[in-house]
Amino acid sequence: MSNSPSFEEQPGPGSSAQAVRQACRSGALRTHTSGLASAHAQGNLVILPRVHAADFLRFCQANPKPCPLLGVSEPGDPALPALGKDIDIRTDLPRYRVWQGGELVDEPTDVRDLWSDDLVSFVIGCSFTFEHALMAEGIALRHVAQGRNVAMFRTSVATAPAGPFRGPMVVTMRPLRAANAIRAVQISSRFPAVHGAPVHIGDPALIGIRSLADPDYGDAVEVMPDELPVFWACGVTPQAALAAAKLPFAITHAPGSMLVTDLLHHSLAAF
Amino acid sequence: MSNSPSFEEQPGPGSSAQAVRQACRSGALRTHTSGLASAHAQGNLVILPRVHAADFLRFCQANPKPCPLLGVSEPGDPALPALGKDIDIRTDLPRYRVWQGGELVDEPTDVRDLWSDDLVSFVIGCSFTFEHALMAEGIALRHVAQGRNVAMFRTSVATAPAGPFRGPMVVTMRPLRAANAIRAVQISSRFPAVHGAPVHIGDPALIGIRSLADPDYGDAVEVMPDELPVFWACGVTPQAALAAAKLPFAITHAPGSMLVTDLLHHSLAAF
Repeated sequence: MSNSPSFEEQPGPGSSAQAVRQACRSGALRTHTSGLASAHAQGNLVILPRVHAADFLRFCQANPKPCPLLGVSEPGDPALPALGKDIDIRTDLPRYRVWQGGELVDEPTDVRDLWSDDLVSFVIGCSFTFEHALMAEGIALRHVAQGRNVAMFRTSVATAPAGPFRGPMVVTMRPLRAANAIRAVQISSRFPAVHGAPVHIGDPALIGIRSLADPDYGDAVEVMPDELPVFWACGVTPQAALAAAKLPFAITHAPGSMLVTDLLHHSLAAF
Repeated sequence: MSNSPSFEEQPGPGSSAQAVRQACRSGALRTHTSGLASAHAQGNLVILPRVHAADFLRFCQANPKPCPLLGVSEPGDPALPALGKDIDIRTDLPRYRVWQGGELVDEPTDVRDLWSDDLVSFVIGCSFTFEHALMAEGIALRHVAQGRNVAMFRTSVATAPAGPFRGPMVVTMRPLRAANAIRAVQISSRFPAVHGAPVHIGDPALIGIRSLADPDYGDAVEVMPDELPVFWACGVTPQAALAAAKLPFAITHAPGSMLVTDLLHHSLAAF
């Protein structure tokens, strides 16, 4: 027997990244990847026709905090060897989103029938890696403790545009006491490939957020009187730019259904 | 003629550290050292009888953020070769303070007549180094722009006691916009030998400070509505602990009259 899970077997925190991808490929895993293969970095996915790839690459390059690129495929090639062994980007995520003209049209569990030699895959770093590092240093994260999605907000901070891609920076917010906020700046600074240091601390109004109780994506989380809201650039930013670009065709991951890579979190530490 | 300044010659920002110390030794410089030999680290000075040296060393070790030790002399030896060539700690600061029973009794310009084989010198890192690094990265500091002393506050945060040494942590406060506060955490984290990262950001009441308009030492500086107060541990902390210990005899530098060392600021960067 091989090490691959059977159709019935569900991957967990201790699974290998390859086993999680195999479970996606086989159809055994159709939901979210949060907490699976927990030592490994996960990535946001954007798949675009080649004609838009250069503009999107420039958009990511110009906006490295919200759009840190972990990997880019060869046109038409569903493999991403730098991110994991035998990745097939068409099948190895639990669920995808298909976009036409900026509108969501489908949420399939694989995109083999939509694939063509014209498509380029972009994998963008995800905050799970710096959250893992924060928790490993003893910094509790309320949304994790409460089993919620992180709170995300559209800001008044504009991304640097490139071709049709433009729009507001989207941020995540985590409430922390000041000493932990300072430590979190230090720790997340080590991980530029997964959004790096925060982009804002304190008054949400200064970056155009009206109410922390009313996030644009994810779940609201309370900020205690002795805490500061700490804001990081978010991987939803490129999805917002993609929607604004109203491309005839694009594929992304479905929220929470990420690509689980072979990269260990700590391999992404810059120092 | 030697390179040493004459009695009349005043050192400036471009002077060598040795020239500044020589000007102190000759009596040409009797005021402050701020801005002199500006590429070089300066240090707070504490001189104690040997009987208290081990406790004070433990106090510094237990409180590295307010009391980062740059150097400790051999008992009775006025030299500090690790900090500079031919330092004579008895003459090479512009002005000293002499303490008896916790009370200030004199402010001489040299302490040769008070010296004995029993005395140990401690040189503690000074915020000038991280301020130099912040300004070199384009972060303006309001108290510097306004030619004021930095605002200092006694906090409700207790130091870890050692022997007779104990008391509140004293902090400096610099107002910064959030993006600069985040950058300042990154930059000052590189300099653990000169207080390192901030100890608090935001609400002063959380560390027992009633009013930012009423500093315990130094000059008040305004915090604008789009700024956060950022607090660093301060080298006045050991002087407060020294006063609290009410030692029969101690010598410190006079405020602003520091030891100018041969160490270049950037040599103190930990990474």
